[in-house]
Amino acid sequence: MKETTIVIHKKVKMKKPVLIEGLPGIGLVGKLAADHLIKERKAVRIATIYSPHFPHQVIMRKSGVLRMVRLKLYYASSSKHDLLFLVGDVQPITSEAQYEVNGKILDFFAAQGGKWIVTLGGYGTGKRVEVPRVFGAATHKKLVPTYSKYNIIFGESKGSIVGAAGLLLGLGRLRGMHGLCLMGETHGSYVDPKSAVASIETLGRLLGMKFDTTALKAKVEEGEKFIKKMEAKASEAAMAESRPAGPEDLTYIR
Amino acid sequence: MKETTIVIHKKVKMKKPVLIEGLPGIGLVGKLAADHLIKERKAVRIATIYSPHFPHQVIMRKSGVLRMVRLKLYYASSSKHDLLFLVGDVQPITSEAQYEVNGKILDFFAAQGGKWIVTLGGYGTGKRVEVPRVFGAATHKKLVPTYSKYNIIFGESKGSIVGAAGLLLGLGRLRGMHGLCLMGETHGSYVDPKSAVASIETLGRLLGMKFDTTALKAKVEEGEKFIKKMEAKASEAAMAESRPAGPEDLTYIR
Amino acid sequence: MKETTIVIHKKVKMKKPVLIEGLPGIGLVGKLAADHLIKERKAVRIATIYSPHFPHQVIMRKSGVLRMVRLKLYYASSSKHDLLFLVGDVQPITSEAQYEVNGKILDFFAAQGGKWIVTLGGYGTGKRVEVPRVFGAATHKKLVPTYSKYNIIFGESKGSIVGAAGLLLGLGRLRGMHGLCLMGETHGSYVDPKSAVASIETLGRLLGMKFDTTALKAKVEEGEKFIKKMEAKASEAAMAESRPAGPEDLTYIR
Amino acid sequence: MKETTIVIHKKVKMKKPVLIEGLPGIGLVGKLAADHLIKERKAVRIATIYSPHFPHQVIMRKSGVLRMVRLKLYYASSSKHDLLFLVGDVQPITSEAQYEVNGKILDFFAAQGGKWIVTLGGYGTGKRVEVPRVFGAATHKKLVPTYSKYNIIFGESKGSIVGAAGLLLGLGRLRGMHGLCLMGETHGSYVDPKSAVASIETLGRLLGMKFDTTALKAKVEEGEKFIKKMEAKASEAAMAESRPAGPEDLTYIR
Repeated sequence: MKETTIVIHKKVKMKKPVLIEGLPGIGLVGKLAADHLIKERKAVRIATIYSPHFPHQVIMRKSGVLRMVRLKLYYASSSKHDLLFLVGDVQPITSEAQYEVNGKILDFFAAQGGKWIVTLGGYGTGKRVEVPRVFGAATHKKLVPTYSKYNIIFGESKGSIVGAAGLLLGLGRLRGMHGLCLMGETHGSYVDPKSAVASIETLGRLLGMKFDTTALKAKVEEGEKFIKKMEAKASEAAMAESRPAGPEDLTYIR
Repeated sequence: MKETTIVIHKKVKMKKPVLIEGLPGIGLVGKLAADHLIKERKAVRIATIYSPHFPHQVIMRKSGVLRMVRLKLYYASSSKHDLLFLVGDVQPITSEAQYEVNGKILDFFAAQGGKWIVTLGGYGTGKRVEVPRVFGAATHKKLVPTYSKYNIIFGESKGSIVGAAGLLLGLGRLRGMHGLCLMGETHGSYVDPKSAVASIETLGRLLGMKFDTTALKAKVEEGEKFIKKMEAKASEAAMAESRPAGPEDLTYIR
Repeated sequence: MKETTIVIHKKVKMKKPVLIEGLPGIGLVGKLAADHLIKERKAVRIATIYSPHFPHQVIMRKSGVLRMVRLKLYYASSSKHDLLFLVGDVQPITSEAQYEVNGKILDFFAAQGGKWIVTLGGYGTGKRVEVPRVFGAATHKKLVPTYSKYNIIFGESKGSIVGAAGLLLGLGRLRGMHGLCLMGETHGSYVDPKSAVASIETLGRLLGMKFDTTALKAKVEEGEKFIKKMEAKASEAAMAESRPAGPEDLTYIR
Repeated sequence: MKETTIVIHKKVKMKKPVLIEGLPGIGLVGKLAADHLIKERKAVRIATIYSPHFPHQVIMRKSGVLRMVRLKLYYASSSKHDLLFLVGDVQPITSEAQYEVNGKILDFFAAQGGKWIVTLGGYGTGKRVEVPRVFGAATHKKLVPTYSKYNIIFGESKGSIVGAAGLLLGLGRLRGMHGLCLMGETHGSYVDPKSAVASIETLGRLLGMKFDTTALKAKVEEGEKFIKKMEAKASEAAMAESRPAGPEDLTYIR
């Protein structure tokens, strides 16, 4: 295996498919959202992606079986748009690897007639918020006013989008595809299911679909408890060192 | 030399060969076991593997002669299964290199009609034990109950198997091969011949062969003495720093 | 995209073109100078360069639109020499990438009949000066006396020229091209528009052209204010630590 | 330039050539020796080696001219053996690059009918000695007794020979070539012309040639003075810190 390889398990004829990416990234927002949607949509795995650019490891499962590090493509049909989900264990580390892996995925998507991409990620602010906003960055200027209607905030997020969430759109655009990156507002140092719920709801409005997020909301409560415990500990520790401490201090916890 | 190259010294026609890997890794458990078995079986070197992905060094021998860094394949015939051992100086460092080297080895093995792989490694727990257990991870679910009979513990080891011990099985599986990784329980910070003995005994049961481990057991005693000396030193040092110390502290010694 | 790719937007027939490089480097001197000249000359973008060797990121713009990391080629015609500017976001990090990217740019330039290259950079001295000098390094010995007339100082700058500013000339020379690197004297720890102005003026003399630097000079004043503020702060901090401090201390600020 | 390239300046028909390598390494022993021999033999540059695996820099000369980072091949005829010297600025950093560069050099050497290689290096001991010994490591066992006659010490140096000094011999051996690495005993933290002189004298005995080392011996005296000054400084510094200090402390100066 010299190159990234897509092993196809099931051939599907897709109608107006949207590629929805949710690989590991900031706050695991994109990964949580996409993994949830696959279950919610009862999507079917149609392909597995292996690559010599992934870590040279196999993962041990509870069952005593090992498996390669991999990405996966799941498919769910729908009356409006068919959905193709990209999820998995890792992001390639080097630039060359990212270009190759994302390029191969776009080759596959283009062969299905795919033209629309939505990538899901987190936008780290170093702060915790009660109601996470959802930021957007689009491939084309004309899309900004259209998408703004769905309560997506454009132009406020700064800097770069690193990895697949950025490159799929950047490389896709060079091939004539359209799309946007949805970034759920998040602290950046915590796994953030609440931000994933916000992203899913925004995506639902965008696609004109209604997604059930009950299962993910349950994780939000667990997460909140964990964070409050962490904050209490950090606060005690800070008091022990006789200096003022507040939630801002958590910015540096990873 | 642009690619990993296998130089064949002796052509052999193998019967139902099992590939047994023992390259350097945690506690050198796999390397100790495989190197021992090569002597015990009087196995013959049939091939040498060179690669531009190995360190750019040559090794000086006591004889005044230098030699390339390399991997080696040894062959031993047997009434049940022929054995093909993979041993050597190093593991490639990058993912791309690991995929290439292990891929070439599987090419060679497949050309011999090989279908079964056992990789040997250590499973680091940060603790020393009197009687090391042997953990397993298999390529296929159906193998788990079969192998469990040989006193191999499945489903308890967690995380990843890094390097050749994992990739040979992961890549092998994609080619229709079967096998498992045997991981001798080990501290992780010491060279551990005792864990290697346990692994060899388990492998013997698995293959229905009886291996003599006398020579390796001698090393166990040497090793124990060395570790006790280290513990005593660490304990003195810890006392000098006026804080409690016990064998657990050794987890961090490398 | 496996290799660096030049996407041509506009075909131009160039007359005696000079390639002028100003990618990010020491003090951003080259980048400031080249970006300014593009505006001053009303140069037109004729090509965009993408590469898997650039960081695997897309950049978010204020407009809410994202774009690939890239280099750009701008063209301006002139009665003396046509000018081809190379500017952009980044320099490739690895040697192999630098050789590939600069090699492709020289392929493009050679196809336009290009034979002359001027690269712009900064020469870091760790000191601030009122009137920055401009150092030079040429591809051929015979050019040194000719260029010396334009108030360019040869033979005083030491060490290496890293990145595109050096490689374009080094690789260009191997293809029979001529040129020089103009290095504006700069501290090295600050963005330095003053040094960029000095470089532009030198380049103007060299090309027999008159460049308006008014816009860039405005930045010089801003920059000076910022640096004086920094110096004041550093001086206070140094006093607080009860040790002597002067402008020299700023050498280590980055 | 995608691969290492050898630009030939002068075609030569060589008689029984010996390849003598002296690239930068421990104590610069090999580089000093080979650079000296090129002058002493009045050897002529016959080829230049460029590579995308060398640092992406150009070097500024005192003349105001820049040049690529490079390796060079020099040729000197002789009644016994023609000599082909390999010298230059750098060693490639990665393994893949070392294999490619050294492989290309061996291709060139093989095309000249070359079969003998002597690589020159330093063997770092962390100690300064009055009379440096010269250690050896040979490609073949049968060479050890022969070479031992020339006052070369075999079997005492341990570990690895890193870079071109090792790989040229290791890769050369796989092509049926013979040779040895001569390692001048050296501290390892200083440039060591004295060790280079010892290596040259040994090489002279080996080749049955008489080399004049007067110019290099002058550098030895300069070097000694510098080291004594360093020792005095280190000793003062150590006294200031009120702890015992001796020449052993210099092991850590780089």
